[in-house]
Formats: sequence, C-alpha cells, structure tokens
Amino acid sequence: MRQSQLFTKTRREAPKDEVAVNARLLTRGGFIFKNSAGIYTFLPLGLRVLEKIEKIIVQELNALGAQKILMQAMVDKKYMEPTARWDLDVGFFALDDKPRRQGVGAPTKASEEANFVLGWTHEEVLTAIAAEYISSYKDLPFAAYQIQTKFRNEPRAKSGLLRGKEFMMKDLYSFHADNRDLQRYYGEVKEAYLRIFKRCGLDAIYTTAAGGMFTTGNTHEFQVLSDVGEDMILMCLKCNYAENREISELKDADKCPKCGGNVAEKHSIEVGNIFPLGTKYSAALGLEYVDELGVKQPVVMGSYGIGISRLIGAIAEISNDANGIIWPDSVSPFKVHLIVLDDRKEEAEKLYNELTDQGIEVLYDDRSDKTAGEKFADADLIGCPWRVVVSNKTLDKNSVEIKKRNEKVAKLVPLDKVVASMI
Amino acid sequence: MRQSQLFTKTRREAPKDEVAVNARLLTRGGFIFKNSAGIYTFLPLGLRVLEKIEKIIVQELNALGAQKILMQAMVDKKYMEPTARWDLDVGFFALDDKPRRQGVGAPTKASEEANFVLGWTHEEVLTAIAAEYISSYKDLPFAAYQIQTKFRNEPRAKSGLLRGKEFMMKDLYSFHADNRDLQRYYGEVKEAYLRIFKRCGLDAIYTTAAGGMFTTGNTHEFQVLSDVGEDMILMCLKCNYAENREISELKDADKCPKCGGNVAEKHSIEVGNIFPLGTKYSAALGLEYVDELGVKQPVVMGSYGIGISRLIGAIAEISNDANGIIWPDSVSPFKVHLIVLDDRKEEAEKLYNELTDQGIEVLYDDRSDKTAGEKFADADLIGCPWRVVVSNKTLDKNSVEIKKRNEKVAKLVPLDKVVASMI
Repeated sequence: MRQSQLFTKTRREAPKDEVAVNARLLTRGGFIFKNSAGIYTFLPLGLRVLEKIEKIIVQELNALGAQKILMQAMVDKKYMEPTARWDLDVGFFALDDKPRRQGVGAPTKASEEANFVLGWTHEEVLTAIAAEYISSYKDLPFAAYQIQTKFRNEPRAKSGLLRGKEFMMKDLYSFHADNRDLQRYYGEVKEAYLRIFKRCGLDAIYTTAAGGMFTTGNTHEFQVLSDVGEDMILMCLKCNYAENREISELKDADKCPKCGGNVAEKHSIEVGNIFPLGTKYSAALGLEYVDELGVKQPVVMGSYGIGISRLIGAIAEISNDANGIIWPDSVSPFKVHLIVLDDRKEEAEKLYNELTDQGIEVLYDDRSDKTAGEKFADADLIGCPWRVVVSNKTLDKNSVEIKKRNEKVAKLVPLDKVVASMI
Repeated sequence: MRQSQLFTKTRREAPKDEVAVNARLLTRGGFIFKNSAGIYTFLPLGLRVLEKIEKIIVQELNALGAQKILMQAMVDKKYMEPTARWDLDVGFFALDDKPRRQGVGAPTKASEEANFVLGWTHEEVLTAIAAEYISSYKDLPFAAYQIQTKFRNEPRAKSGLLRGKEFMMKDLYSFHADNRDLQRYYGEVKEAYLRIFKRCGLDAIYTTAAGGMFTTGNTHEFQVLSDVGEDMILMCLKCNYAENREISELKDADKCPKCGGNVAEKHSIEVGNIFPLGTKYSAALGLEYVDELGVKQPVVMGSYGIGISRLIGAIAEISNDANGIIWPDSVSPFKVHLIVLDDRKEEAEKLYNELTDQGIEVLYDDRSDKTAGEKFADADLIGCPWRVVVSNKTLDKNSVEIKKRNEKVAKLVPLDKVVASMI
C-alpha cells in the first residue's frame, strides 16, 4: 500500500487523555482511534493486525476440528435466566426491544425493563443451540467457536485495548460425553493456545486461576509478563508453573511446589483463559445426550477465550521502544516499510512492484512532502519488521539500505537481491 | 468437510414460527439458528456463505481503493447529536454506560438516561474520525469501509434474514473535495455494486429512491425482484430504468420516460443503497479541508451500504425449489456435495482427498446411518451446485454420477475424470 493513499497519518503526540502505553503508541501510529472510553475504531493499520491474529487463531482452531460460527451481540434474557447470569447486576449492558411509537418512550430514555443483555460471553446461547442438534453419544464430541464483538461495562476503561467496553474476542466452546474427554480436549486447546500466543510473538504462561463468573472450579489463564498488567501471578522461575495471586497460597520467594525452584510475584496481562465448565450450563439449559446404554446424561462442556483486541494491546505494551511499536513479523500490518528518498521514485516503484508481485506486504512511503527524518520516525512508530530505504546514498552502489526494526545497524543489499532476501 | 463431523443436522420441518421462505429453508438446511425474533446465529454452513460474500465485497471495494476499517457498535451520543439523529425516537436501541454498584440500578432495569445508541449506521463516527486526519485538498479523496454488525429495533422482524434486529452490513463512506468528484466515485461504486450482486448470482436493478434518514436528496437502491419483497418499484421492462414507488410518479403500464418501453410495478427486495450525502455530515461535525487557494471548504461525502445477511436471505428467497436452496457457485458453502452409498468408502475417500487436494471445497456425506434417499434430500436442501454420488451402480462402470443442483439429469463421469471436470 502507498502511504500517500493511507487516510490516517501518524501523530507526534499522543492524546492527553490516554495514559496506557499501548493506547498512546497505537493511536500515534494510526492503528486505532478512540471514540469513547474503552471504545476504539480499528483504522486500516490496526485492522490489518487484528485480521492477522484472527487468521492465526482460525488456523489453529480449525486444526483442532472446531467449527466456526457467528452468534449475536443481543442475548435474550431467556438464555441467561436459567444459569442465574441474568441477575448479575454489575458490569453488563442491558437493553430492551419493545417497540416505541414516535414521541413515546424514546430510546434515549430506555426506561422499560430490559429483556436483552449485550453478550459478554456465549455459553448459554451455544448450549441452547447445541440442544437442537445433539441427542446421542454419536453427536459428541464437538466444538464451535466464533470471532465476535463482546461488551462489558468496564468502569476503569483507561488501559487502551487492554480493557475495553467493546472488544474483539474469540470464544470456543466444546461439548463432551464425559469429563475424561473434556480433559483430553482441554489439553489440546492448551497446546493450541500456547502455539497461538507464540505465533503472535508472546510467551504466555499457563496459570491456575479462579473460575470467576464462569465456574466454581479452578480454571486456567494465559498470562504474559508486563509491568502494566493488572493481574498478579506467582510463577516459578525454573519450571514456569504459575498461579494467579487471587487463589495462590504461594508468596514471593517461596519454593515451587512442582520443582522446588524459586517463586516470584509478577505483574501480568491475561490474554486468554480456559474453563472446564462441567455440566453447569448443559444442566441449566437441558442439553443432554443418550449414552451407549440408552441412559440420558448431561453433556460436559469447556469454554475457551482469547481477547484478540487485548492481545494487540499486550503486544504493543511488551514489544516497543522509545520510538514506537516493534511488531512481530507474523502480525505486523506490513512486512516491509519501503521508503523512497531523494526523488528516486523510479527505482523505488520498481522494487515496490517486485516485492508485492512476490506476495510480500509492503507499506511504501512514496510521500514527496516528507523529510528523511519524518519518514524514519514514521517507520519506527508504525513498527514494521523490515525497513528498506531507496536513496542516492546507496543507489550509487546499486544497493539499498535494509534495517530490521529491532536492530540498530542497517546493512547494504544489492538491488537485485532485495526480493530474495525478503522471502 | 465430513458431514458426519458437522455438528448441525438438517431438519425435515421448518420451525412453526417461521413464515419467510428464506428463514424456513436456511433453518432446515442448518445455515442459521433463530435466537429471538430478528436475531439469528450463523451456523457453520451459513457462516461459510456469509464469508464468501464478504470476500467478494472486499475484493471489489479494495479495487476501488477503499480502505477497510472496523468501527464499533456502541455509538456515543456526542456523535449523533450534531446531526440531529440522536433524537430520532423510533427504531433504535439506546443504552447507557454509567457504572452500577451491586444491587443499585441493576442493568436489567436500565433506567438511567441513555448516552449511547447501538450503531445502525456510521456516517457520524467516520466523519469525526476523518476530521482528525483530513486538513488539505491533498488528503482527498479517500474512502473507507467496514463489515460490521448493525442494530435496528425492527417491530416486524418476521422475514428471516431480510429484516433483522441485528444484521451484518458492509458500509462504505467516501470523502471528496467537491460534488463532481463525489459523482465520479458514486458512479464507480454503482458499477462495483452491480458486479458484486452479479457475482452473488443476483440481477440487481439500480433504482432511484428517497433519502430516508440519510439525506434530503434522491438516493439509489439496488433492488432484486421477488414476490416477497417489501419494496415496490416501477421498472421499465425494456431498459431497466426503475424508481421506488415511494417517490415515483410512474404507474403500472405507463411508458418509460427514458426509452418509451413498458413500465411495470414489481415487488422487490432492497439489497443495497447508495447516498450522495453532500455536506450534511461534514458540516455538522466540522470536517473541512483547505483548498488549493487556501480557503476552507466542507468535505463532500457519499455513503454506500450492502446488507450482507439480507443478501443471503434474498438469494435463498429467489434461488430455490421445492427441495431446498440452489446456491450460486460463488457463494455456496461448498462447491461439491460428495455422497457415498453402498459402503464404497474406499473409492469415496480417495475422491474426497483428490478433490480437496485441488483446493475444491467438498462437503462429504460419509454418514453410514443414512439411506440414499436421506442423503439426496439433504444434498438438495443444503443446495451445493454439484452432487457427486459414489455407489455400486456406477462404480461397476468405473464411474460416478454427477448432477448439477439446478438440473434434473445426472451424467456418468469416469472416476479418473471427476477432478478435472470440477476445476
């Protein structure tokens, strides 16, 4: 893409009301735009990152045999009442769909009693759907997931993409004949999650945690270490065994109960969580199957979430320097930031075409009204992994300058070797 | 995909509360699941159709240079007030994000005054975003679009995917220095829209219409003829010139004002609309640019919508027979429905692998507990364009039976020619 065509521009200064590093860098780079506290638009660069992460997740979950669906934001009271999650009276958005006549009960004053909640999770909805299709042990196991917008009325929406009122989530639900099969799948999802985070450039720590609003038993979180993280975990520095402080009996400097290594207390960001739900939702919503002996049994369930927009925030918090974000190759909006200086458009255009012909994603800074300094600053701020500079200085040697975003030193590469070096 | 793994099943009967043909067929085939009136989950088959249409739209709009973004469902009052669309008091969902304490002002009774609306369109939001980035004539023109969930509180949500409370929409917005440039782009979008609908198997009729809640001037709709359509258009049977009855002075059997042909009144479904907005939104939200002479000017805008979920409903209404949907190749969940009979799994598996290795999307009915009749009925109901049957009858001749969904007669194709005939 030609940067002259990109409708967003970078900003020298972050908005004054943004305190979180991720929001400051992502806003300055033109990845996101803040509409209201905790509500962000994904601009072209930001959406490219979001879609790359989605693609990684889809690949990994399809490989687990999970089937992609799309549920809806408006969740009917009828689904949430049976599990007693309708009456949870903090943190959610409720609304009603009663018809209004002109001038009567204007929706700007939604005073009627609510009969919908904006979905903050979909266990109930999918359990009710599954009840239409599952009747026999032969129908099990199965798993379905969606990538969909979620809503929570966060009072402390000051952390950029780490804590949104509206955010993008991947939620996966699995259905099993018994707990043993759930545990098998739970383990597979754990491994898939660790691969997903690794592919997104993050080292996630598998952490035992409380069930929250989902289940009474223990659950597991995927935490990435970050000083700005709102979570605290106690982790073994040797074997990485970790517990969320909320449930942990460990203290800083304790010995690891698994390997005897040293335990340390760390700030972290939760980027995913998995819940062995058991039969809580299936029992409440009547999801049963008939087993091999003809006996009705409740279906055993698991639920598994990844906050995709939060993941972007986490990467921006963790992978940056004073000049901007440092995107991992896998999720960068573009692989290459190609910069032309000194009016050497002919050579730059040719290189741009050669790279894109090879399927390499290039952000091409073709702007003629920017200085070299401005272009370099933008490249650092936007943070693509490779910066390629076409300028007089090196074209005289029939070469271009290539620098990795996370390295200090550039190298000269002959013009006719650039494409090959990028594939 | 193996049909034995698909967690949905077809249904012999449509739900009693569904009257619309599209909802009945899509539900029976396992494409959608009704959660509430006007609120549907896209099941694996339905989501495949949705994503194929999205892909077509993305291709065509990217070719117009439009940039993909993602705005949010919760639209702040601050955006809608300047254009006086906050006080529209019918048809929308309002809510508030005031923090609640446990037991106080439970969101099940959202009685506080609303400060958000669930987005039913995004002119205001994107205009406000553009105001951050647009300052000079050099920044124009540009266009941005999103594929995003929209919300309208439809009192008559009885038409399946044709009229939803929550639905998937593609909305494109363009920004120009003057009306002439808007008209140029408007024409390009018109052509792109006609291509999009054609690629989705629909003959859309470009129709002059009223501005609705978007603009005071005339706008244009894309209508497809259908007896169940809620719109009425007066169209020339010779040149296809058409006007929405709401604004037309033409009557049935009049002569066409353009070519003198015969005008007929027809029911139709609106699948897209385009609006020359002028400066209504830019003026209200302060989106100006400085022209070549240094003079401040309001930006001229256009807005362009396609109801993607409605499009699926329209295709199902228009392209079906007594046995089910007949998907156009381009948007079918799978190209081939491969059916194995008589326990000839070995040959069928081989063919399944050969087809999928060639990138052909195959729904493989590998179920061993279904009769031939049940499998054929399912294939008709799901409606993939090609049905391939592997059975004793034809394998004896070293062939399989191939039938197009929209044709009555099957033909025999030698086993080793099947893949080639499908590419």
